[in-house]
Amino acid sequence: MPRVTIARNILAANEEIAADVRRRLAAAGVRCINLMSGPGAGKTTLLERSVARLRGQLAVGVIEGDIETSLDAERIEAAGAQVVQINTRGACHLEAHMVRDALETLNLQRLDLLFIENIGNLVCPAAWDLGEDLRAVVVSTTEGDEKPAKYPQIFAAAQVLVLNKMDLLPYVDYDPERVCTQALAVNPGLQIFALSCRSGEGLDAWCDWLLAFTSKRSVTTARETPYIMGGAGS
Amino acid sequence: MPRVTIARNILAANEEIAADVRRRLAAAGVRCINLMSGPGAGKTTLLERSVARLRGQLAVGVIEGDIETSLDAERIEAAGAQVVQINTRGACHLEAHMVRDALETLNLQRLDLLFIENIGNLVCPAAWDLGEDLRAVVVSTTEGDEKPAKYPQIFAAAQVLVLNKMDLLPYVDYDPERVCTQALAVNPGLQIFALSCRSGEGLDAWCDWLLAFTSKRSVTTARETPYIMGGAGS
Repeated sequence: MPRVTIARNILAANEEIAADVRRRLAAAGVRCINLMSGPGAGKTTLLERSVARLRGQLAVGVIEGDIETSLDAERIEAAGAQVVQINTRGACHLEAHMVRDALETLNLQRLDLLFIENIGNLVCPAAWDLGEDLRAVVVSTTEGDEKPAKYPQIFAAAQVLVLNKMDLLPYVDYDPERVCTQALAVNPGLQIFALSCRSGEGLDAWCDWLLAFTSKRSVTTARETPYIMGGAGS
Repeated sequence: MPRVTIARNILAANEEIAADVRRRLAAAGVRCINLMSGPGAGKTTLLERSVARLRGQLAVGVIEGDIETSLDAERIEAAGAQVVQINTRGACHLEAHMVRDALETLNLQRLDLLFIENIGNLVCPAAWDLGEDLRAVVVSTTEGDEKPAKYPQIFAAAQVLVLNKMDLLPYVDYDPERVCTQALAVNPGLQIFALSCRSGEGLDAWCDWLLAFTSKRSVTTARETPYIMGGAGS
């Protein structure tokens, strides 16, 4: 069936380019996270807050993927990161060749950590290797707590799960434990952070982990617990 | 380029099947709405509430599209609708052949209105005609108010926009007017309903409109205004 054959060829070509991206980033000493979520889970706000908190400790770059507009890139740039905008003009996920092209406009020697903010889509990005070291998926407390069961591929493809908008928990029917249980059933190795970009709850643990991930700080307790719910106090 | 050619063939084949679905629904006197949104905007809850409110006035059926699980179908069935579950096992949108197959298990003679709940995805479903009479896209106040600018295709492809989770407005940074302005810039003909499935605000206007759409009640004021914000009192 030609459709499957060609899809395989495209994915194989993507993997070759992703391997090239991975080599270039490793050679420059840049760690890379592919950030994925459905629309509006808070990827951009998480990046804004992370970039601002890590300023002076970590040089962060962002490849910002959107179907249209440069609204998100402008927000991230204002927070103090090197940014490149990719507009896919309708495509539902980023592919490795887009990242390879975007690298040309970044000064890798000046970066410690590169985020790739994927298109807001909880389905298609899961299949595409972008040359990242790690994939993080963001869900929010307003999306319903059955997402890992309904969209298992993206949770299986990630190493980190961020549960965002914890400040809205009192106003929604959402059980964070249910989400964690479902996510760990799909992927027992997932590291989970619960936080709120609005209140700041949990952002310290997340930023500590980013520093450890980029070897700018020794490994924190993050690896000792299956997941971190909220900040240090909860 | 083979990828494009084959994609066109697939879309053309889809349109033929969609036309067949449309003929069969029209012959049975069933009106059909393709309900689209990102993950967790509240499509299933909107259907639950609509089915429950319209019980006795309108016979509603639902074709429930999910990548995995029958969680949503169980909720809708409990609310009192004829339901068929489609599991796409990874595919990011419904296609017309899936709807055609699902029709075999529904008693169309006993239906006035058929909803097709698409996969939670604000990108890919826009390109696929399912044989519906009308497309409605649901966004929620927790997703960020720049969605129509960032995902214009799905707003351009719809006739109705539902702004859900209006009860959460006090707790989020979200400007409903901005969303409406952006959506109407992409698609000036959009009819917009603002509502909350949790508080019930705006559901009367939505259900009145569904009754008018299925010719079970004369056309309401809905067509006279560009959009309805909230219920009758707001």
